[in-house]
Amino acid sequence: MKLVARTMNLEVGGKYVVILNKEDADFLGLHALDRVRLKCKGKELTAIVDITTRFVMKGEIMTNDDVTTFFNLSGGEHIDVSKEKGPESLIYIKQKIAGARLEYNKIKKIIKDVVDKKLSDIELTALVTALYTRGISIDEAASFSRAMVETGKRFKFGKKVICDKHSIGGIPGDKTSLVLVPIIAASGLTIPKTSSKAITSPCGTAERMEVLAPVDLTLDEIEEVVKKTNACLVWGGALDLAPADDEFIKIEYPLGIDPMLLPSIMSKKKAVNAKYVVIDIPTGKETKVTSMEKARELAEDFLELGKRLGMHVACGITFGDQPLGYCIGPTLEAREALLTLQGKGPRDLVKKATMLCDILFNEVGAKNHGAALQILKSGKAEKKMREIIEAQGGDPEIKPENIEVGDKIFKVKSDTEGRVLWVKNSAIVLIAREAGAPKDKSAGIHLNVKMGDKVKKGDLLFTIHSNNYIRLSDAAKLAEELKPITVGKKFEEKMLLEKIFAEIPTRKIFMLER
Amino acid sequence: MKLVARTMNLEVGGKYVVILNKEDADFLGLHALDRVRLKCKGKELTAIVDITTRFVMKGEIMTNDDVTTFFNLSGGEHIDVSKEKGPESLIYIKQKIAGARLEYNKIKKIIKDVVDKKLSDIELTALVTALYTRGISIDEAASFSRAMVETGKRFKFGKKVICDKHSIGGIPGDKTSLVLVPIIAASGLTIPKTSSKAITSPCGTAERMEVLAPVDLTLDEIEEVVKKTNACLVWGGALDLAPADDEFIKIEYPLGIDPMLLPSIMSKKKAVNAKYVVIDIPTGKETKVTSMEKARELAEDFLELGKRLGMHVACGITFGDQPLGYCIGPTLEAREALLTLQGKGPRDLVKKATMLCDILFNEVGAKNHGAALQILKSGKAEKKMREIIEAQGGDPEIKPENIEVGDKIFKVKSDTEGRVLWVKNSAIVLIAREAGAPKDKSAGIHLNVKMGDKVKKGDLLFTIHSNNYIRLSDAAKLAEELKPITVGKKFEEKMLLEKIFAEIPTRKIFMLER
Repeated sequence: MKLVARTMNLEVGGKYVVILNKEDADFLGLHALDRVRLKCKGKELTAIVDITTRFVMKGEIMTNDDVTTFFNLSGGEHIDVSKEKGPESLIYIKQKIAGARLEYNKIKKIIKDVVDKKLSDIELTALVTALYTRGISIDEAASFSRAMVETGKRFKFGKKVICDKHSIGGIPGDKTSLVLVPIIAASGLTIPKTSSKAITSPCGTAERMEVLAPVDLTLDEIEEVVKKTNACLVWGGALDLAPADDEFIKIEYPLGIDPMLLPSIMSKKKAVNAKYVVIDIPTGKETKVTSMEKARELAEDFLELGKRLGMHVACGITFGDQPLGYCIGPTLEAREALLTLQGKGPRDLVKKATMLCDILFNEVGAKNHGAALQILKSGKAEKKMREIIEAQGGDPEIKPENIEVGDKIFKVKSDTEGRVLWVKNSAIVLIAREAGAPKDKSAGIHLNVKMGDKVKKGDLLFTIHSNNYIRLSDAAKLAEELKPITVGKKFEEKMLLEKIFAEIPTRKIFMLER
Repeated sequence: MKLVARTMNLEVGGKYVVILNKEDADFLGLHALDRVRLKCKGKELTAIVDITTRFVMKGEIMTNDDVTTFFNLSGGEHIDVSKEKGPESLIYIKQKIAGARLEYNKIKKIIKDVVDKKLSDIELTALVTALYTRGISIDEAASFSRAMVETGKRFKFGKKVICDKHSIGGIPGDKTSLVLVPIIAASGLTIPKTSSKAITSPCGTAERMEVLAPVDLTLDEIEEVVKKTNACLVWGGALDLAPADDEFIKIEYPLGIDPMLLPSIMSKKKAVNAKYVVIDIPTGKETKVTSMEKARELAEDFLELGKRLGMHVACGITFGDQPLGYCIGPTLEAREALLTLQGKGPRDLVKKATMLCDILFNEVGAKNHGAALQILKSGKAEKKMREIIEAQGGDPEIKPENIEVGDKIFKVKSDTEGRVLWVKNSAIVLIAREAGAPKDKSAGIHLNVKMGDKVKKGDLLFTIHSNNYIRLSDAAKLAEELKPITVGKKFEEKMLLEKIFAEIPTRKIFMLER
């Protein structure tokens, strides 16, 4: 059936969508969300159908942005429209729903259809939910990883031996990569680090680094930076490394499930050609992984998956019961990282970064235990970081004291004396976000105390920063309500971690960052 | 944030959808598919957000049909827009995904949010997929049934004892209800039968009956019909009995899964206040239920669920290895049903209808075995059917020979001699639909032979009817390809039921009708 194109500048989550009049749809036997094959100007495309009775006239076809761009339509063209059966991968998705284990060929077809946007939200959601409820075997995870790499772009760095680091995330203030990457690069190894932006957290590594230098580089620019400095610290989101993952995240985020964690991470490591990888698994009550048992299981899965993908993987299970360092929020964290590279960093951050470096050195085969701390103390890591900043287009002379943090501040003091018994990650995340982070780069929280510190009545516990009084006041109210820092005499006095009222707390956050 | 309304006559699958400019969305911290709370003219509504960079200007909000109608917008109104957290039921959906058994209160909240359209397609799909992969307990099925009844409309027939019948479907040509309902009503019992229209089959009971009388009646009209005749044969789709089911079907259909089968059927029986229910479970190689074991399990579930909902339920497991009667397609089936009520029906249809009637009589406590066949033979059932037809607004004098069937016909003859070894349900369904059924009411298939019949070379096997030559020719081609009727000397000669080539057969159909 030939229909006349009418273009509409509507983006529908990156899908190819057309809208038909109900009469035409009935004639073609189409229901809403069915697929049609479109032919125009010698090109073909599969799109998803929406149906209207008035907005689009009989004989017309409304095309959304993606369809308009694909055919280079200006309106008035004739498009040949026919009904299309579901894509082949739908059969495999149904098999997974039914409980099957899928082989590589089927998984490859699924991932290809995901990347080609041939699956509807319903089909994609059913897949993600079934992957979660039925579980993924290591074989399936390997197949997914491989298929995700093959359907995306890859880094090429010639014969260099590539190292990489990843944190599964979950604790606020985790600026380890900004310290680890320059140490590794200063040691002579190559580490092209790509990072994500925050989705549910107050700051991702991409936002931290963006305070110091541009992170939105092209593949060619990144290769140039790595050639010069042995490293980079860039945003991986627009590089099309494992692009299927972006589609999965769109579904996982509203559902708060993360079945693709392993393939998602490992495909991105594979796409940068990493040979040696260290994975950080922060473990604690209020992070992603809550028990040592689960952390060990996850670590084993990473190791096993690494083997199948031809990578050496090691994992560090790290203390995740409070934020890392004292600063949360992009500029606050960038400043803390720079100070750390100058030898003035908080002990937990220094310890964690150098410990993960030493795991990598050990993997690669270097024997010098403690080398990471030496490199940090020698100033070589700071020098390397300034080289990376310069290569990415930032100011290599940047000083910590010149990084501006939010000048609207709210101080929270202790109303009692004792020791800091705990610092709640989830509360810190919510307050920092309420203050404006990560969108407002200067917003965040500066902690004055950490677990175990002695506190007197009236002592400063933390400061909230923002560039906006309304947001600051909202964050202050939230801090009053959530009380992120608990001060008490002894742990025994404070056995109650949280009161659960009849009403279900809806603030519980799911940290998708990976 | 106040935005100016712009209306757009776009239906998006019955959801409340608004489109914002990316800048406004960023300001409110919104991502595509997030929810917003809209306030205007003293009314409030939750809608799902789509985001565009050009189509909608900064400061504007584009409203789809459902939102426009809700607020009675004409464009230019100020709408207050704020971000909304996910609905409470999302927490329970996540619990189900995680494998929990849900109690009534949680299920009620989910169903309420489904009916109020507060869940996105992603959330609804995740729920449906998890209900399928995690399974539904009988307790959950009872809770879903109850909640679905409570969120919909109900029939009120005073103190009458209500009977009902349902087939889980799966075989073409199943016109049992058109014979059973008048027999039951003629016996003095009350049976307000609501039926669905075909989704994937060539004909539903609503389409069969529509050939004889209008089926699209209001609740009030139906109550009037039932008062007059003790029965009705109407379309249930627009009556808002268990409206949540319509939302589930939208998701289940493209996925080919049916986790809500039991609650869906039983809630509709409960909504008409049925006290005695007979469920037909056609069982056979090419229908929904393929083994006796599965049929018995399903029957037990229906019985147990009936108990919890205060209904007496009995099930008939029936032969489903070929179509019922000789006719498939709306007018062909209506004619066959009318002939059956006149004592000229095919044996299998008479047998099945009267047997299910006798199960109902038995449930109610009547002792007269064989009563159903007597009522049919006496002509009382035909008289009752004509009363029902008249009460619903049809012609009570309608004669079988005056029902027009498709006049474009294609005859398929046997190219060998022997016995009819089998008649493939799936092939019959596909050919009849290709010929135009159910949209073309006159289209369908008239079988000349059934399983076991002796056939000579050149004997007529079946005739395809249509009102359109192109569709007829497409159906004929499909018949040639699918060969729905197999003639052979002995079963032993024909051990091969179907050849599976390397390519996966994509024609396999999923019959959702319920």
